[in-house]
Amino acid sequence: MKMKYFYSYLAGFLDADGSIYCRLKPNKTYKYDFQVAPNVVFFQNKKAEKGLLRLQKQLERGYLRYRKDGIIEFTIGDRSSIRHILTKSLPFLVFKKEQAELMIDILDSSKEVKSAHDFVKLAQMIDKFGKLNYSKKRTILAQVVRHHLENKGVLTP
Amino acid sequence: MKMKYFYSYLAGFLDADGSIYCRLKPNKTYKYDFQVAPNVVFFQNKKAEKGLLRLQKQLERGYLRYRKDGIIEFTIGDRSSIRHILTKSLPFLVFKKEQAELMIDILDSSKEVKSAHDFVKLAQMIDKFGKLNYSKKRTILAQVVRHHLENKGVLTP
Repeated sequence: MKMKYFYSYLAGFLDADGSIYCRLKPNKTYKYDFQVAPNVVFFQNKKAEKGLLRLQKQLERGYLRYRKDGIIEFTIGDRSSIRHILTKSLPFLVFKKEQAELMIDILDSSKEVKSAHDFVKLAQMIDKFGKLNYSKKRTILAQVVRHHLENKGVLTP
Repeated sequence: MKMKYFYSYLAGFLDADGSIYCRLKPNKTYKYDFQVAPNVVFFQNKKAEKGLLRLQKQLERGYLRYRKDGIIEFTIGDRSSIRHILTKSLPFLVFKKEQAELMIDILDSSKEVKSAHDFVKLAQMIDKFGKLNYSKKRTILAQVVRHHLENKGVLTP
């Protein structure tokens, strides 16, 4: 498949059965004690493994994670790959355009973080995924980050 | 979205979360007592209704069926629409190419049925969807049709 068609194909795949999301993970090795973890994931039953391997090969990015419940997650987790895929697919996305735009904004902003204040602002952007993805499981919200950084004394309340 | 990209988008959507299948339904108003019922269906959670309506509008075909479990089925059931969509999407399909080719073959063959023998052959083609779609629920197989037509005296055993 030619690459220009491949990215519209991928947009359809992502709209139908993919997920674009970003989480904050506690991680003391990072400057503000939280790691920004972006992900683009395609979900399929293990019966579709062959097709997923073909997509992975054409994309030359990401890896397959075999869940115990029989679902395979084709996951793209590194930032340059996420930026690449979303930028190319963006013009064709119908359902998940907002998530893709938000993710690209977050990747941009995360490079510009110069203070605890900036980091809380970034966390607030990440919070928006909760609403866009109808996610109820999000626990580390910007508010948690703010409290943590205030308690640590690096952020003025 | 330009139409040439739309069909590669649709192929991705179909590969990820769609279904291409054909069933035989008992129907005494048809010559051989069974109706050939082809379908192309896109499944989405009701939260994605807006996107499905946009696809339906761009495609100008099919209808939305709202299931009680919160799933919407965007269904294309008429033959000319199915033929159109599958022919245009075929070059881009990765996971469901065989199903699309089989469906087009069935639509072609169903126009050529001139005897009970031909109809049983058509039913045998339809049987192939069972394996391709990992379906375990198929009850009206070619064998059922053959027995019925033999018992009726229109097919020589």
